[in-house]
Amino acid sequence: MKRLLLSNLILISIATATTLKVPSQYSTIQAAIDESSNGDTVLVAAGTYVESYQGASGQQDKRSEDEYDPELRLKELGITLPIPSTPVANYVNGVRTGNLIFLAGKGPKRADGSSIVGKVGVDITIEKGYEAAQLTAINQLAVLKAMLGDLNRVTRVVKVLGMVNSDPSFTDQPKVINGFSDLIVEVFGERGRHARAAVGMASLPGGIAVEIEMIVEVRN
Amino acid sequence: MKRLLLSNLILISIATATTLKVPSQYSTIQAAIDESSNGDTVLVAAGTYVESYQGASGQQDKRSEDEYDPELRLKELGITLPIPSTPVANYVNGVRTGNLIFLAGKGPKRADGSSIVGKVGVDITIEKGYEAAQLTAINQLAVLKAMLGDLNRVTRVVKVLGMVNSDPSFTDQPKVINGFSDLIVEVFGERGRHARAAVGMASLPGGIAVEIEMIVEVRN
Amino acid sequence: MKRLLLSNLILISIATATTLKVPSQYSTIQAAIDESSNGDTVLVAAGTYVESYQGASGQQDKRSEDEYDPELRLKELGITLPIPSTPVANYVNGVRTGNLIFLAGKGPKRADGSSIVGKVGVDITIEKGYEAAQLTAINQLAVLKAMLGDLNRVTRVVKVLGMVNSDPSFTDQPKVINGFSDLIVEVFGERGRHARAAVGMASLPGGIAVEIEMIVEVRN
Repeated sequence: MKRLLLSNLILISIATATTLKVPSQYSTIQAAIDESSNGDTVLVAAGTYVESYQGASGQQDKRSEDEYDPELRLKELGITLPIPSTPVANYVNGVRTGNLIFLAGKGPKRADGSSIVGKVGVDITIEKGYEAAQLTAINQLAVLKAMLGDLNRVTRVVKVLGMVNSDPSFTDQPKVINGFSDLIVEVFGERGRHARAAVGMASLPGGIAVEIEMIVEVRN
Repeated sequence: MKRLLLSNLILISIATATTLKVPSQYSTIQAAIDESSNGDTVLVAAGTYVESYQGASGQQDKRSEDEYDPELRLKELGITLPIPSTPVANYVNGVRTGNLIFLAGKGPKRADGSSIVGKVGVDITIEKGYEAAQLTAINQLAVLKAMLGDLNRVTRVVKVLGMVNSDPSFTDQPKVINGFSDLIVEVFGERGRHARAAVGMASLPGGIAVEIEMIVEVRN
Repeated sequence: MKRLLLSNLILISIATATTLKVPSQYSTIQAAIDESSNGDTVLVAAGTYVESYQGASGQQDKRSEDEYDPELRLKELGITLPIPSTPVANYVNGVRTGNLIFLAGKGPKRADGSSIVGKVGVDITIEKGYEAAQLTAINQLAVLKAMLGDLNRVTRVVKVLGMVNSDPSFTDQPKVINGFSDLIVEVFGERGRHARAAVGMASLPGGIAVEIEMIVEVRN
């Protein structure tokens, strides 16, 4: 854990509620800020020292770590990870460098080999797009499981680039990529909260509804 | 600082001038190459050893560091950083892993909550797009300020992905994203010079004109 | 090298063949998985310990390293790297942070300054798009050569984002970006196998056919 000085008064008030169960108490203000989507108001006085997340170099809150055993969470959610599909070209599903794994873009491929296809908002609904993003999350988790053996070795989901197959008039990309983000946070808890971009692509390989990249931090 | 052998003759001549004030002398050839946009011609003989930038592991030129105190530069530029908006979904504004911070995609949201929207070159002008990219830079700086407390802890802006809401016929994305890059270099000086891609998206959340991601290197 | 426990039975069978010459024997299962595109079937029993690639922190197979001297491979392939073009705006061709280099997006610019332009599948063929991706690979190698002096200092190509100028109905982005991936693996061998996304953009700067970003891991 690393101390950082908030030199300005920060007032955060978010009205949006989510359906995720989140811890009711936070050991750090950073966690509270991260969790602000549950409607809390956080007031931090100027000059207050707060703890910020420091990734693998820091220690996580023990209770939170226990609560979010990602392997256990997958079982509780009834999710069985598939065998990851192998790229048919000169690339791989993921590359580890230091403590980071950069995952290749994956799409909403089902166990039977078919994929959810179509431009969201035109060919398929936002709800179907959300489902596609959820399925893509499962496919990325399958890659991580194959690379790491145990998802508990993921110390933080760092970055997600969510690319939505979009008509030029479609502007609800975040609602689609939430299918990915929500599942990742369900599985990893606090460690799953990531930086994200959700954007609209002209087209995607094979007409898939979404393609999503992810960077995760891992420990040995 | 790390030595690297340039094994080929390199001749660089760039005619494009910028309005940025840059140091007139460079302690390293890499810096001179980086600064080539001011019209210099750089001739490096084969086999010359030059110093290359090594990020946090190296030491920066002292004068340059003084000249570009980013907190002071913000004041000089008359920029007051807003309170960063908090994502309403299961993601966060930025995640630090080791010495890197991966920032979420941000857009041209104004202090009043409204955003600059529209497809650049069709709905809005390139100049308005440039302004949108500038506003997005301020919003990303606000996130960094909240995460770090002091922008002097940024040792290098590493990578920028500038996504422009584009009609299929629009091809001037770099002129738009320059609004982001120019402000970042105004604030951070040499440390602000980044690797970049500026590309055209089919659509963006809420119809915003640009969405921009950034990776920065920081020190404790 | 780091041991990891594969806790599930993994059966991989890929029928797709490539024209690349790859080593016929692999010292690690990870390598075999990576190489599965040559038609091998790999059966790994539950609980088997395998070696996984650990980047710069591990040691590479000596024979493979010899076989793929990237400088020698470039000569064998008859490729002469151009002088990298210098960005005309406030950004640079690449930034190194720690052991990673983040390269700016590059396009299919020819030695004479012209570029391969057009939307793939509409204005130009997939084959021309493949050629554009190949040319872009050469341009990125030129940047790496200028930054590193010797391409043998690249320990792993980590991540590629391949952006194809696409009509909304075009869905063969991977066939285009293969032009980049195939050349990178021809030059770097095993070290060149990367995580990748190949996606469709509404438009690109100057109408170029592709723009491709790359992250590589390097040693001192």
